[in-house]
Amino acid sequence: MAGRTTVVLVQPMFAPNVGSVARVMANFGLPRLVLVSPAAGLMDDPAVKHLARAGFDVFRDARVVESLEEALADVDLALGFTARTGKRRGEDLELRPAVNKVACELPDGHVAAVFGREDDGLSTEEMARCHWLVRIPTGPTFSSLNLAQAVALFAYERFESTRAPLGEPTADMVASSQDVDGFQHHLEAVLDRVGFLQEHNRDRMVLHLRKMLTRRVPTRRDVHILRGILKKVQNALGPT
Amino acid sequence: MAGRTTVVLVQPMFAPNVGSVARVMANFGLPRLVLVSPAAGLMDDPAVKHLARAGFDVFRDARVVESLEEALADVDLALGFTARTGKRRGEDLELRPAVNKVACELPDGHVAAVFGREDDGLSTEEMARCHWLVRIPTGPTFSSLNLAQAVALFAYERFESTRAPLGEPTADMVASSQDVDGFQHHLEAVLDRVGFLQEHNRDRMVLHLRKMLTRRVPTRRDVHILRGILKKVQNALGPT
Repeated sequence: MAGRTTVVLVQPMFAPNVGSVARVMANFGLPRLVLVSPAAGLMDDPAVKHLARAGFDVFRDARVVESLEEALADVDLALGFTARTGKRRGEDLELRPAVNKVACELPDGHVAAVFGREDDGLSTEEMARCHWLVRIPTGPTFSSLNLAQAVALFAYERFESTRAPLGEPTADMVASSQDVDGFQHHLEAVLDRVGFLQEHNRDRMVLHLRKMLTRRVPTRRDVHILRGILKKVQNALGPT
Repeated sequence: MAGRTTVVLVQPMFAPNVGSVARVMANFGLPRLVLVSPAAGLMDDPAVKHLARAGFDVFRDARVVESLEEALADVDLALGFTARTGKRRGEDLELRPAVNKVACELPDGHVAAVFGREDDGLSTEEMARCHWLVRIPTGPTFSSLNLAQAVALFAYERFESTRAPLGEPTADMVASSQDVDGFQHHLEAVLDRVGFLQEHNRDRMVLHLRKMLTRRVPTRRDVHILRGILKKVQNALGPT
Protein backbone atom coordinates (compact mmCIF):
# COMPACT_ATOMS: atom_id res chain seq x y z
CA MET A 1 0.00 0.00 0.00
CA ALA A 2 1.27 3.44 -0.90
CA GLY A 3 1.66 5.80 2.04
CA ARG A 4 1.08 5.11 5.72
CA THR A 5 -2.30 5.11 7.43
CA THR A 6 -3.00 5.47 11.14
CA VAL A 7 -6.40 5.12 12.80
CA VAL A 8 -6.81 7.31 15.88
CA LEU A 9 -9.64 6.69 18.35
CA VAL A 10 -10.23 9.56 20.77
CA GLN A 11 -11.40 8.38 24.20
CA PRO A 12 -13.05 5.15 23.10
CA MET A 13 -15.40 3.87 25.80
CA PHE A 14 -16.46 0.36 24.77
CA ALA A 15 -14.09 -2.58 24.49
CA PRO A 16 -16.16 -4.45 21.86
CA ASN A 17 -15.92 -1.42 19.56
CA VAL A 18 -12.14 -1.30 19.93
CA GLY A 19 -11.91 -5.03 19.27
CA SER A 20 -14.07 -4.68 16.14
CA VAL A 21 -11.94 -1.76 14.98
CA ALA A 22 -8.77 -3.85 15.36
CA ARG A 23 -10.34 -6.71 13.41
CA VAL A 24 -11.46 -4.62 10.47
CA MET A 25 -8.13 -2.77 10.35
CA ALA A 26 -6.44 -6.17 10.03
CA ASN A 27 -8.96 -7.12 7.31
CA PHE A 28 -7.86 -4.15 5.23
CA GLY A 29 -4.15 -4.27 6.05
CA LEU A 30 -3.99 -1.20 8.30
CA PRO A 31 -1.68 -2.05 11.22
CA ARG A 32 -1.34 1.35 12.98
CA LEU A 33 -3.82 2.11 15.78
CA VAL A 34 -3.50 4.95 18.29
CA LEU A 35 -5.80 5.25 21.30
CA VAL A 36 -6.11 8.65 22.94
CA SER A 37 -7.02 8.26 26.64
CA PRO A 38 -9.12 5.10 26.36
CA ALA A 39 -11.70 4.44 29.09
CA ALA A 40 -10.44 2.95 32.35
CA GLY A 41 -10.17 -0.85 32.15
CA LEU A 42 -10.61 -0.96 28.39
CA MET A 43 -7.05 -2.06 27.66
CA ASP A 44 -7.47 -5.17 29.84
CA ASP A 45 -11.06 -6.00 28.85
CA PRO A 46 -11.25 -9.54 27.38
CA ALA A 47 -14.00 -8.35 25.02
CA VAL A 48 -11.32 -6.63 22.93
CA LYS A 49 -9.54 -9.90 22.17
CA HIS A 50 -12.84 -11.73 21.68
CA LEU A 51 -14.01 -9.27 19.02
CA ALA A 52 -10.61 -8.58 17.42
CA ARG A 53 -9.97 -12.22 16.46
CA ALA A 54 -6.89 -12.30 14.20
CA GLY A 55 -6.78 -8.50 14.44
CA PHE A 56 -5.65 -8.70 18.06
CA ASP A 57 -2.09 -7.94 16.90
CA VAL A 58 -3.28 -4.50 15.80
CA PHE A 59 -4.63 -3.83 19.29
CA ARG A 60 -1.56 -5.28 21.05
CA ASP A 61 0.72 -3.03 19.00
CA ALA A 62 -1.49 0.05 19.47
CA ARG A 63 0.09 3.22 20.82
CA VAL A 64 -1.71 4.75 23.81
CA VAL A 65 -1.28 8.51 24.21
CA GLU A 66 -2.70 11.29 26.37
CA SER A 67 -3.68 13.82 23.74
CA LEU A 68 -4.70 14.09 20.09
CA GLU A 69 -1.73 16.41 19.57
CA GLU A 70 0.59 13.58 20.59
CA ALA A 71 -1.29 11.13 18.34
CA LEU A 72 -0.80 13.36 15.31
CA ALA A 73 2.85 14.30 15.94
CA ASP A 74 4.31 12.52 12.87
CA VAL A 75 1.25 12.72 10.62
CA ASP A 76 1.15 14.65 7.31
CA LEU A 77 -2.61 14.90 7.01
CA ALA A 78 -5.33 14.31 9.60
CA LEU A 79 -8.88 13.48 8.54
CA GLY A 80 -11.41 14.27 11.27
CA PHE A 81 -14.55 12.14 11.00
CA THR A 82 -17.75 13.95 11.89
CA ALA A 83 -21.48 13.58 11.40
CA ARG A 84 -22.00 17.22 12.35
CA THR A 85 -22.54 20.01 9.91
CA GLY A 86 -22.17 22.85 12.38
CA LYS A 87 -19.50 25.52 12.54
CA ARG A 88 -17.36 24.22 9.73
CA ARG A 89 -20.31 23.30 7.55
CA GLY A 90 -19.37 23.28 3.90
CA GLU A 91 -15.76 22.58 4.71
CA ASP A 92 -16.31 18.86 4.99
CA LEU A 93 -15.68 16.25 2.31
CA GLU A 94 -17.53 13.02 1.79
CA LEU A 95 -15.65 9.80 2.53
CA ARG A 96 -14.92 8.56 -1.00
CA PRO A 97 -13.83 11.88 -2.52
CA ALA A 98 -11.73 12.57 0.58
CA VAL A 99 -9.93 9.24 0.40
CA ASN A 100 -9.38 9.59 -3.36
CA LYS A 101 -8.03 13.10 -2.82
CA VAL A 102 -5.56 11.71 -0.29
CA ALA A 103 -4.45 9.04 -2.77
CA CYS A 104 -3.95 11.67 -5.48
CA GLU A 105 -2.38 14.47 -3.47
CA LEU A 106 -0.42 12.55 -0.82
CA PRO A 107 0.39 9.21 -2.43
CA ASP A 108 3.35 8.70 -0.09
CA GLY A 109 2.13 10.67 2.92
CA HIS A 110 1.28 9.55 6.43
CA VAL A 111 -2.46 9.96 6.87
CA ALA A 112 -4.41 9.72 10.12
CA ALA A 113 -8.14 9.04 10.31
CA VAL A 114 -9.41 10.48 13.60
CA PHE A 115 -12.62 9.16 15.15
CA GLY A 116 -14.29 10.71 18.22
CA ARG A 117 -16.10 9.34 21.25
CA GLU A 118 -18.97 6.89 20.74
CA ASP A 119 -21.49 9.28 22.32
CA ASP A 120 -20.16 12.69 21.43
CA GLY A 121 -17.73 12.56 18.50
CA LEU A 122 -14.86 15.02 18.28
CA SER A 123 -14.75 18.34 20.14
CA THR A 124 -14.45 21.61 18.24
CA GLU A 125 -10.82 21.87 19.35
CA GLU A 126 -10.07 18.34 18.16
CA MET A 127 -11.70 19.03 14.79
CA ALA A 128 -9.53 22.14 14.52
CA ARG A 129 -6.45 19.89 14.78
CA CYS A 130 -7.60 17.97 11.69
CA HIS A 131 -6.77 19.23 8.20
CA TRP A 132 -9.95 17.97 6.55
CA LEU A 133 -13.31 17.08 8.05
CA VAL A 134 -14.80 13.95 6.55
CA ARG A 135 -18.43 12.93 6.55
CA ILE A 136 -19.69 9.44 5.73
CA PRO A 137 -22.85 9.88 3.65
CA THR A 138 -25.90 8.13 5.14
CA GLY A 139 -29.64 8.19 4.72
CA PRO A 140 -31.45 11.15 6.25
CA THR A 141 -33.32 9.50 9.12
CA PHE A 142 -30.56 7.91 11.23
CA SER A 143 -27.05 9.11 10.47
CA SER A 144 -25.28 7.93 13.64
CA LEU A 145 -22.90 5.15 12.63
CA ASN A 146 -21.39 2.76 15.14
CA LEU A 147 -17.70 3.61 15.73
CA ALA A 148 -16.40 0.29 14.38
CA GLN A 149 -18.69 0.55 11.34
CA ALA A 150 -17.36 4.03 10.57
CA VAL A 151 -13.78 2.75 10.82
CA ALA A 152 -14.72 -0.22 8.60
CA LEU A 153 -16.01 2.08 5.87
CA PHE A 154 -12.87 4.22 6.04
CA ALA A 155 -10.56 1.16 6.02
CA TYR A 156 -12.41 -0.29 3.03
CA GLU A 157 -12.30 2.97 1.03
CA ARG A 158 -8.64 3.50 1.90
CA PHE A 159 -7.86 -0.03 0.78
CA GLU A 160 -9.83 0.46 -2.45
CA SER A 161 -8.17 3.81 -3.19
CA THR A 162 -4.64 2.50 -2.82
CA ARG A 163 -4.69 -0.90 -4.46
CA ALA A 164 -5.02 0.46 -8.02
CA PRO A 165 -7.15 -2.24 -9.62
CA LEU A 166 -6.55 -3.33 -13.19
CA GLY A 167 -7.47 -0.65 -15.68
CA GLU A 168 -7.68 2.11 -13.08
CA PRO A 169 -5.05 4.84 -13.22
CA THR A 170 -2.79 5.16 -10.19
CA ALA A 171 -2.71 8.46 -8.32
CA ASP A 172 0.31 9.88 -10.17
CA MET A 173 -1.31 9.17 -13.54
CA VAL A 174 -4.37 11.30 -12.88
CA ALA A 175 -4.56 14.43 -15.03
CA SER A 176 -4.18 17.68 -13.09
CA SER A 177 -6.66 20.56 -13.36
CA GLN A 178 -4.09 22.35 -15.53
CA ASP A 179 -3.84 19.36 -17.86
CA VAL A 180 -7.60 19.30 -18.21
CA ASP A 181 -7.80 23.09 -18.67
CA GLY A 182 -5.19 22.89 -21.40
CA PHE A 183 -7.07 20.18 -23.21
CA GLN A 184 -10.33 22.05 -22.92
CA HIS A 185 -8.91 25.24 -24.46
CA HIS A 186 -7.32 23.25 -27.23
CA LEU A 187 -10.52 21.38 -27.90
CA GLU A 188 -12.56 24.59 -27.97
CA ALA A 189 -10.21 26.07 -30.56
CA VAL A 190 -10.68 23.03 -32.80
CA LEU A 191 -14.43 22.98 -32.25
CA ASP A 192 -14.64 26.61 -33.25
CA ARG A 193 -12.51 25.98 -36.31
CA VAL A 194 -14.72 23.15 -37.54
CA GLY A 195 -17.97 24.91 -36.67
CA PHE A 196 -19.11 22.59 -33.85
CA LEU A 197 -19.61 25.31 -31.25
CA GLN A 198 -22.36 27.77 -31.98
CA GLU A 199 -23.79 30.72 -30.10
CA HIS A 200 -26.81 28.86 -28.69
CA ASN A 201 -24.92 25.79 -27.43
CA ARG A 202 -21.43 27.11 -26.62
CA ASP A 203 -21.63 27.38 -22.80
CA ARG A 204 -23.61 24.17 -22.38
CA MET A 205 -21.28 22.18 -24.66
CA VAL A 206 -18.09 23.44 -23.08
CA LEU A 207 -19.44 22.61 -19.61
CA HIS A 208 -20.47 19.15 -20.75
CA LEU A 209 -17.11 18.36 -22.33
CA ARG A 210 -15.39 19.47 -19.14
CA LYS A 211 -17.61 17.24 -17.02
CA MET A 212 -17.06 14.36 -19.40
CA LEU A 213 -13.32 14.49 -18.76
CA THR A 214 -13.65 14.62 -15.00
CA ARG A 215 -16.44 12.13 -14.55
CA ARG A 216 -16.19 8.41 -13.98
CA VAL A 217 -17.83 6.66 -16.89
CA PRO A 218 -18.94 7.87 -20.32
CA THR A 219 -22.66 8.38 -20.88
CA ARG A 220 -24.65 7.88 -24.06
CA ARG A 221 -24.76 11.64 -24.36
CA ASP A 222 -20.96 11.79 -24.15
CA VAL A 223 -20.67 9.42 -27.04
CA HIS A 224 -23.36 11.22 -29.04
CA ILE A 225 -21.56 14.51 -28.60
CA LEU A 226 -18.13 13.09 -29.38
CA ARG A 227 -19.48 11.55 -32.56
CA GLY A 228 -21.07 14.85 -33.49
CA ILE A 229 -17.65 16.43 -33.16
CA LEU A 230 -16.07 13.82 -35.36
CA LYS A 231 -18.70 14.26 -38.07
CA LYS A 232 -17.95 17.97 -38.12
CA VAL A 233 -14.24 17.27 -38.39
CA GLN A 234 -14.87 14.90 -41.27
CA ASN A 235 -17.05 17.44 -43.05
CA ALA A 236 -14.45 20.13 -42.53
CA LEU A 237 -11.76 17.90 -43.98
CA GLY A 238 -13.81 17.31 -47.10
CA PRO A 239 -14.12 14.08 -49.10
CA THR A 240 -11.45 11.43 -48.82
CA MET B 1 -33.69 4.97 -3.70
CA ALA B 2 -34.28 3.19 -6.99
CA GLY B 3 -35.27 -0.46 -6.68
CA ARG B 4 -35.80 -2.50 -3.55
CA THR B 5 -33.09 -4.04 -1.42
CA THR B 6 -33.43 -6.87 1.07
CA VAL B 7 -30.71 -8.12 3.40
CA VAL B 8 -30.94 -11.86 4.14
CA LEU B 9 -29.02 -13.39 7.07
CA VAL B 10 -28.82 -17.18 6.95
CA GLN B 11 -28.81 -18.76 10.43
CA PRO B 12 -27.30 -15.84 12.30
CA MET B 13 -25.95 -16.98 15.69
CA PHE B 14 -25.05 -13.86 17.63
CA ALA B 15 -27.57 -11.23 18.75
CA PRO B 16 -25.05 -8.35 18.80
CA ASN B 17 -24.30 -8.99 15.12
CA VAL B 18 -27.99 -8.89 14.22
CA GLY B 19 -28.43 -5.68 16.21
CA SER B 20 -25.45 -4.09 14.45
CA VAL B 21 -26.82 -5.20 11.08
CA ALA B 22 -30.19 -3.57 11.86
CA ARG B 23 -28.46 -0.35 12.91
CA VAL B 24 -26.32 -0.03 9.81
CA MET B 25 -29.25 -0.92 7.53
CA ALA B 26 -31.14 1.99 9.11
CA ASN B 27 -28.09 4.22 8.62
CA PHE B 28 -28.22 3.56 4.87
CA GLY B 29 -32.00 3.54 4.47
CA LEU B 30 -32.43 -0.21 3.90
CA PRO B 31 -35.56 -1.28 5.81
CA ARG B 32 -36.00 -4.92 4.64
CA LEU B 33 -34.35 -7.64 6.73
CA VAL B 34 -35.05 -11.37 6.45
CA LEU B 35 -33.68 -13.87 8.96
CA VAL B 36 -33.46 -17.51 7.88
CA SER B 37 -33.70 -19.81 10.94
CA PRO B 38 -31.96 -17.54 13.46
CA ALA B 39 -30.36 -19.20 16.51
CA ALA B 40 -32.65 -20.15 19.39
CA GLY B 41 -33.28 -17.22 21.72
CA LEU B 42 -31.80 -14.66 19.34
CA MET B 43 -35.11 -12.95 18.58
CA ASP B 44 -35.67 -12.16 22.28
CA ASP B 45 -32.08 -11.32 23.18
CA PRO B 46 -31.88 -7.77 24.63
CA ALA B 47 -28.46 -7.36 22.97
CA VAL B 48 -30.22 -6.90 19.62
CA LYS B 49 -32.07 -3.81 20.81
CA HIS B 50 -28.99 -2.51 22.64
CA LEU B 51 -26.85 -2.67 19.51
CA ALA B 52 -29.55 -1.72 16.97
CA ARG B 53 -30.28 1.67 18.58
CA ALA B 54 -32.61 3.61 16.23
CA GLY B 55 -32.34 0.70 13.80
CA PHE B 56 -34.47 -1.48 16.08
CA ASP B 57 -37.45 -0.84 13.77
CA VAL B 58 -35.62 -2.75 11.05
CA PHE B 59 -35.25 -5.76 13.37
CA ARG B 60 -38.83 -5.52 14.68
CA ASP B 61 -40.16 -5.53 11.11
CA ALA B 62 -37.84 -8.35 10.00
CA ARG B 63 -39.38 -11.39 8.33
CA VAL B 64 -38.35 -14.73 9.86
CA VAL B 65 -38.43 -17.69 7.48
CA GLU B 66 -37.39 -21.33 7.49
CA SER B 67 -35.42 -21.54 4.25
CA LEU B 68 -33.39 -19.41 1.86
CA GLU B 69 -35.81 -20.40 -0.90
CA GLU B 70 -38.63 -18.74 1.04
CA ALA B 71 -36.48 -15.66 1.70
CA LEU B 72 -35.82 -15.20 -2.02
CA ALA B 73 -39.38 -15.88 -3.25
CA ASP B 74 -40.09 -12.35 -4.55
CA VAL B 75 -36.51 -11.35 -5.38
CA ASP B 76 -35.27 -10.55 -8.90
CA LEU B 77 -31.56 -10.95 -8.21
CA ALA B 78 -29.78 -12.57 -5.27
CA LEU B 79 -26.18 -11.66 -4.43
CA GLY B 80 -24.47 -14.36 -2.37
CA PHE B 81 -21.62 -12.98 -0.24
CA THR B 82 -18.64 -15.25 0.07
CA ALA B 83 -14.99 -15.10 1.05
CA ARG B 84 -14.37 -18.45 -0.59
CA THR B 85 -12.81 -18.94 -3.97
CA GLY B 86 -13.53 -22.62 -4.31
CA LYS B 87 -15.84 -24.36 -6.74
CA ARG B 88 -17.22 -21.26 -8.39
CA ARG B 89 -13.89 -19.46 -8.43
CA GLY B 90 -13.77 -16.91 -11.20
CA GLU B 91 -17.51 -16.53 -11.20
CA ASP B 92 -17.48 -14.05 -8.35
CA LEU B 93 -17.62 -10.28 -8.62
CA GLU B 94 -16.07 -7.76 -6.28
CA LEU B 95 -18.43 -5.70 -4.15
CA ARG B 96 -18.26 -2.35 -5.93
CA PRO B 97 -18.51 -3.61 -9.52
CA ALA B 98 -21.30 -5.97 -8.45
CA VAL B 99 -23.34 -3.22 -6.84
CA ASN B 100 -22.76 -0.88 -9.79
CA LYS B 101 -23.80 -3.65 -12.19
CA VAL B 102 -27.03 -4.05 -10.22
CA ALA B 103 -27.68 -0.30 -10.44
CA CYS B 104 -27.08 -0.35 -14.20
CA GLU B 105 -28.85 -3.56 -15.15
CA LEU B 106 -31.69 -3.71 -12.62
CA PRO B 107 -32.36 -0.09 -11.70
CA ASP B 108 -35.91 -0.94 -10.57
CA GLY B 109 -35.38 -4.55 -9.50
CA HIS B 110 -35.70 -6.20 -6.11
CA VAL B 111 -32.22 -7.23 -5.02
CA ALA B 112 -31.32 -9.46 -2.09
CA ALA B 113 -27.90 -9.52 -0.43
CA VAL B 114 -27.46 -12.94 1.19
CA PHE B 115 -24.99 -13.38 4.06
CA GLY B 116 -24.09 -16.76 5.58
CA ARG B 117 -23.37 -18.01 9.08
CA GLU B 118 -20.77 -16.20 11.21
CA ASP B 119 -18.58 -19.30 11.39
CA ASP B 120 -19.20 -21.03 8.11
CA GLY B 121 -20.69 -18.69 5.51
CA LEU B 122 -23.09 -20.03 2.88
CA SER B 123 -23.33 -23.69 1.88
CA THR B 124 -22.72 -24.77 -1.70
CA GLU B 125 -26.45 -25.28 -2.15
CA GLU B 126 -27.22 -21.82 -0.80
CA MET B 127 -24.64 -20.27 -3.11
CA ALA B 128 -26.28 -22.09 -6.00
CA ARG B 129 -29.54 -20.26 -5.18
CA CYS B 130 -27.79 -16.91 -5.67
CA HIS B 131 -27.44 -15.39 -9.12
CA TRP B 132 -24.08 -13.74 -8.51
CA LEU B 133 -21.40 -14.47 -5.94
CA VAL B 134 -19.91 -11.34 -4.42
CA ARG B 135 -16.56 -11.00 -2.71
CA ILE B 136 -15.54 -8.05 -0.57
CA PRO B 137 -11.90 -7.34 -1.38
CA THR B 138 -9.62 -7.39 1.66
CA GLY B 139 -5.91 -7.57 2.41
CA PRO B 140 -4.28 -10.97 1.98
CA THR B 141 -3.52 -11.90 5.58
CA PHE B 142 -6.93 -11.85 7.29
CA SER B 143 -9.92 -11.84 4.98
CA SER B 144 -12.62 -12.89 7.44
CA LEU B 145 -14.94 -9.91 7.94
CA ASN B 146 -17.35 -9.69 10.84
CA LEU B 147 -20.94 -10.29 9.62
CA ALA B 148 -22.17 -6.82 10.56
CA GLN B 149 -19.10 -5.21 8.96
CA ALA B 150 -19.75 -7.09 5.72
CA VAL B 151 -23.38 -5.91 5.73
CA ALA B 152 -22.20 -2.36 6.49
CA LEU B 153 -19.93 -2.36 3.43
CA PHE B 154 -22.73 -3.68 1.22
CA ALA B 155 -25.26 -1.16 2.61
CA TYR B 156 -22.81 1.70 2.06
CA GLU B 157 -21.98 0.67 -1.52
CA ARG B 158 -25.65 0.11 -2.33
CA PHE B 159 -26.47 3.55 -0.94
CA GLU B 160 -23.62 5.13 -2.91
CA SER B 161 -24.61 3.38 -6.14
CA THR B 162 -28.23 4.49 -6.02
CA ARG B 163 -28.08 8.08 -4.84
CA ALA B 164 -26.56 9.44 -8.09
CA PRO B 165 -24.39 12.22 -6.69
CA LEU B 166 -24.00 15.49 -8.56
CA GLY B 167 -22.00 15.09 -11.73
CA GLU B 168 -22.26 11.29 -11.80
CA PRO B 169 -24.33 9.73 -14.54
CA THR B 170 -27.32 7.67 -13.48
CA ALA B 171 -27.53 4.05 -14.59
CA ASP B 172 -29.61 4.69 -17.70
CA MET B 173 -27.18 7.34 -18.90
CA VAL B 174 -24.20 5.00 -19.04
CA ALA B 175 -22.99 4.28 -22.55
CA SER B 176 -23.51 0.71 -23.72
CA SER B 177 -20.72 -1.42 -25.19
CA GLN B 178 -22.31 -0.86 -28.59
CA ASP B 179 -22.24 2.91 -28.09
CA VAL B 180 -18.58 2.74 -27.19
CA ASP B 181 -17.79 0.36 -30.08
CA GLY B 182 -19.49 2.74 -32.50
CA PHE B 183 -17.53 5.68 -31.21
CA GLN B 184 -14.28 3.76 -31.39
CA HIS B 185 -14.77 2.79 -35.04
CA HIS B 186 -15.75 6.33 -35.92
CA LEU B 187 -12.74 7.73 -34.10
CA GLU B 188 -10.41 5.26 -35.82
CA ALA B 189 -11.70 6.34 -39.21
CA VAL B 190 -10.98 9.97 -38.42
CA LEU B 191 -7.60 9.18 -36.93
CA ASP B 192 -6.65 7.32 -40.08
CA ARG B 193 -7.88 10.18 -42.23
CA VAL B 194 -5.77 12.76 -40.40
CA GLY B 195 -2.71 10.50 -40.13
CA PHE B 196 -2.72 10.00 -36.34
CA LEU B 197 -2.70 6.22 -36.44
CA GLN B 198 0.42 4.66 -37.87
CA GLU B 199 1.58 1.10 -38.29
CA HIS B 200 3.82 1.04 -35.20
CA ASN B 201 1.28 2.55 -32.78
CA ARG B 202 -2.09 1.48 -34.17
CA ASP B 203 -2.98 -1.41 -31.83
CA ARG B 204 -1.62 0.29 -28.74
CA MET B 205 -3.40 3.57 -29.47
CA VAL B 206 -6.75 1.98 -30.25
CA LEU B 207 -6.56 -0.04 -27.03
CA HIS B 208 -5.68 3.05 -25.03
CA LEU B 209 -8.52 5.12 -26.46
CA ARG B 210 -10.93 2.32 -25.67
CA LYS B 211 -9.70 2.11 -22.08
CA MET B 212 -9.89 5.88 -21.76
CA LEU B 213 -13.59 5.80 -22.53
CA THR B 214 -14.37 3.03 -20.07
CA ARG B 215 -12.16 4.13 -17.21
CA ARG B 216 -13.03 6.39 -14.31
CA VAL B 217 -10.82 9.47 -14.54
CA PRO B 218 -8.63 10.86 -17.29
CA THR B 219 -4.88 10.41 -16.91
CA ARG B 220 -2.11 12.71 -18.06
CA ARG B 221 -1.45 10.28 -20.83
CA ASP B 222 -5.10 10.50 -21.91
CA VAL B 223 -4.82 14.23 -22.22
CA HIS B 224 -1.47 14.03 -23.98
CA ILE B 225 -2.91 11.65 -26.55
CA LEU B 226 -6.11 13.63 -27.06
CA ARG B 227 -4.10 16.77 -27.64
CA GLY B 228 -1.93 14.91 -30.09
CA ILE B 229 -5.06 14.01 -32.00
CA LEU B 230 -6.24 17.57 -32.04
CA LYS B 231 -2.92 18.85 -33.34
CA LYS B 232 -3.18 16.40 -36.21
CA VAL B 233 -6.70 17.53 -36.95
CA GLN B 234 -5.55 21.14 -36.98
CA ASN B 235 -2.66 20.36 -39.29
CA ALA B 236 -4.95 18.45 -41.60
CA LEU B 237 -7.36 21.35 -41.75
CA GLY B 238 -4.60 23.71 -42.78
CA PRO B 239 -4.09 27.35 -41.71
CA THR B 240 -7.04 29.41 -40.45
